[in-house]
Amino acid sequence: MADDRKIEANTVRQCVEHIAKGTISSEELVNHLLEQVDQTESELRAWALIDKERLIAHAKMLDDIRRRGEPLGALHGIPVGLKDIYDTADCPTRLGSDIHANRQPASDCRVVEKLKEAGALIMGKTVTTEFAFMHPSDTRNPHNTDYSPGGSSSGSAASVAAGHVQLSIGSQTNGSVIRPASFCGVYGFKPSAGIVSRSGVLETSGTLDQVGVFGRDVGDIALLVDCIAGFDKHDPASYLAPKPAMLQGYLSDVPVTPTLAWIDMPYRDRYSTDAAEGFEELLDAMSGMVERIPAPQSFAALIPCHKIIHEYELIRALDNEIKHHWDKISDTVKPTIEAAQAITDEQYQEALHIRTAAVEWFEQFFHDYDAIVTPSALSEAPLMGSTGDPVCCTIWTLCGLPCISMPLLSGENGLPIGVQLVGALRQDDRLLRTTRHVLQHLHDDK
Amino acid sequence: MADDRKIEANTVRQCVEHIAKGTISSEELVNHLLEQVDQTESELRAWALIDKERLIAHAKMLDDIRRRGEPLGALHGIPVGLKDIYDTADCPTRLGSDIHANRQPASDCRVVEKLKEAGALIMGKTVTTEFAFMHPSDTRNPHNTDYSPGGSSSGSAASVAAGHVQLSIGSQTNGSVIRPASFCGVYGFKPSAGIVSRSGVLETSGTLDQVGVFGRDVGDIALLVDCIAGFDKHDPASYLAPKPAMLQGYLSDVPVTPTLAWIDMPYRDRYSTDAAEGFEELLDAMSGMVERIPAPQSFAALIPCHKIIHEYELIRALDNEIKHHWDKISDTVKPTIEAAQAITDEQYQEALHIRTAAVEWFEQFFHDYDAIVTPSALSEAPLMGSTGDPVCCTIWTLCGLPCISMPLLSGENGLPIGVQLVGALRQDDRLLRTTRHVLQHLHDDK
Repeated sequence: MADDRKIEANTVRQCVEHIAKGTISSEELVNHLLEQVDQTESELRAWALIDKERLIAHAKMLDDIRRRGEPLGALHGIPVGLKDIYDTADCPTRLGSDIHANRQPASDCRVVEKLKEAGALIMGKTVTTEFAFMHPSDTRNPHNTDYSPGGSSSGSAASVAAGHVQLSIGSQTNGSVIRPASFCGVYGFKPSAGIVSRSGVLETSGTLDQVGVFGRDVGDIALLVDCIAGFDKHDPASYLAPKPAMLQGYLSDVPVTPTLAWIDMPYRDRYSTDAAEGFEELLDAMSGMVERIPAPQSFAALIPCHKIIHEYELIRALDNEIKHHWDKISDTVKPTIEAAQAITDEQYQEALHIRTAAVEWFEQFFHDYDAIVTPSALSEAPLMGSTGDPVCCTIWTLCGLPCISMPLLSGENGLPIGVQLVGALRQDDRLLRTTRHVLQHLHDDK
Repeated sequence: MADDRKIEANTVRQCVEHIAKGTISSEELVNHLLEQVDQTESELRAWALIDKERLIAHAKMLDDIRRRGEPLGALHGIPVGLKDIYDTADCPTRLGSDIHANRQPASDCRVVEKLKEAGALIMGKTVTTEFAFMHPSDTRNPHNTDYSPGGSSSGSAASVAAGHVQLSIGSQTNGSVIRPASFCGVYGFKPSAGIVSRSGVLETSGTLDQVGVFGRDVGDIALLVDCIAGFDKHDPASYLAPKPAMLQGYLSDVPVTPTLAWIDMPYRDRYSTDAAEGFEELLDAMSGMVERIPAPQSFAALIPCHKIIHEYELIRALDNEIKHHWDKISDTVKPTIEAAQAITDEQYQEALHIRTAAVEWFEQFFHDYDAIVTPSALSEAPLMGSTGDPVCCTIWTLCGLPCISMPLLSGENGLPIGVQLVGALRQDDRLLRTTRHVLQHLHDDK
């Protein structure tokens, strides 16, 4: 497997097998990916930091483990991109902010511990928007560098789309995984809230922050989530019950044809014309599987409810930065922070109550439907200077539901548009099973 | 599966399948096991505490998870016995000592978190000797209640042997898993040091304390260790690299016939006659697979080296109890504690150096041999009043090597004698693979 094109043609799972057998080494894989980085990174700016020397040394160490016949991990030898809000003990974690230009965490976050235990490498830290919020980063869309890759997990999505890495990790508080996945034409998966620990990850909203991942194969991202999932008593959202088996779920056959719901969302008049047309065609291709239903009246209240919780918690999480480093906060974010000061405790409590009711509503809803099919974003990627609108993700993120974006459509500028499937809370395995069925159905349909 | 005998005939893995399919419920399994406890517990005294109400409520909760179609764990609905030195948030953890008669931990130890995440239940707390050390408990050997079950994991071994539970968890600082497994005629497995976290477990020796398990099927205990293994930065022995896949290892076929070593141990003249004869017969049955080799001269120094490390660390770990509760410490343990005060820092440091050299020696050794076959104990169980001699375990525990005791022989009193296999550090999967081959070979030989 000296032929580099072969590396690209392999899924992560196939690469893991090759590395286990010794037909490629982790070092070869890393070197191949570093070449891809060298070719396009100066234009794309997906990476906040890649420490090539340390990376190659780590790959050699993992190859040595194999040569000595020691146990191999489920991601043995696979480099993973990591959004620069996940703490790493061996390199800085800058949170996309000049305030933290020299920030060096004392220890790895739980996700990095889990990755290392699975034999994965950290390829490097991917560019994030400032505090994983809305001020655009310099990262560009690999499909057309005039366009935005979306945010806030800009570099995690762009690096996978550009072939710099096969897998990466991002985070989503509103639409920061699904939207960049849509814009960059890769798979994005945000598991149910509480499945993956956020210990050692920048907190912007304890209620809403969730871990998500990117890849070019659904089975691969399912495997990645299996490796990083697990209870952590230091994360208040983490829960002590069996977790969905992601890869096993993805590989399962559906017991009966799944029933999907297309909901006429409150923001449906904002879909771009090309996106709306694409979705109509898709629904035609999925006819018999999808039921169109109007949005329940309660949906309209959920978007402002998310905003209240997010901003109320954000200004408390960033208290130190706001108080002591105001001049180093971007002008994009300042007005939001100022306005958020006016949110009252009562408004916040009411928003939490509305959220709880919505979670219960969805629990009932998913007795009747296997998944919601819905746009990942309003349109193709916007031009550089904006990260795009996260509204197509807001309600699902608010309720912690598992979401996956599939790169199925393209728009008038030839840029990707994602199709989102949303599943029942903590039934991510069922969502992945449904996803495989849908992809198979659409593939057979061609 | 209303027939109780069927429950007993099933491995844990089969029970997990039955529970997943709904052919038995966790509640039925728990009730069946509670009946077994009721029949013999007054005589055996294997349990420090069983909270029946809470246990049945937990089983119902796990059955509800299945009914709702939510994710099931790898040990979903299976009750596990837990040595009473593992912290539990919902019931006391008394460490086998009156000093701690009212000790209620604030949170679960990591092993219990892992068990709960795997869908297992805590059947109850099993009796341990005082501070998991050498003062005998009241627990009796289920094969003959005049005899000791061994220690310190007395209740964990006896409860499995008595059919009170299919799986249990103990700990080993010298021979506290392998020896009671041998005396009680069940499988005992102490994985390599650092595989399972000791956070929230009584510390008696940071260097030597190790987690171990009991069961009646090797595949079942392999599965149990898979469920509780994992990196934990709060345990200094825990290491951040891929862990051996235990069940997968056990189920693997050996690539070539394994080479075992029978070492003429420094304490071989202390084997009881019946045990020595049993071993000779076993070696005959395994001829062609086992090479007999003399013990290296360095072995003799390792047993006192273990004693120095153990006792030096023990009196520091029990500092509070020794200083403030001396009158409540048993007379069995007091002389050891008093003598241990004389161990100097230099002696301790020298012992640690000897240990390091031994670990390196074994690393080389296991390039040539797949496992060491050796007695689990000097003889059958002794009469009540002693926990027996751990010497057959000392050297392997000192070096953190994975050990498994197989209930293959019996002695002149008709009590079980275990055969121990010892493998390469952190290659527990290889040891389990070898174990399956050996068991298969002996079975075919009959």
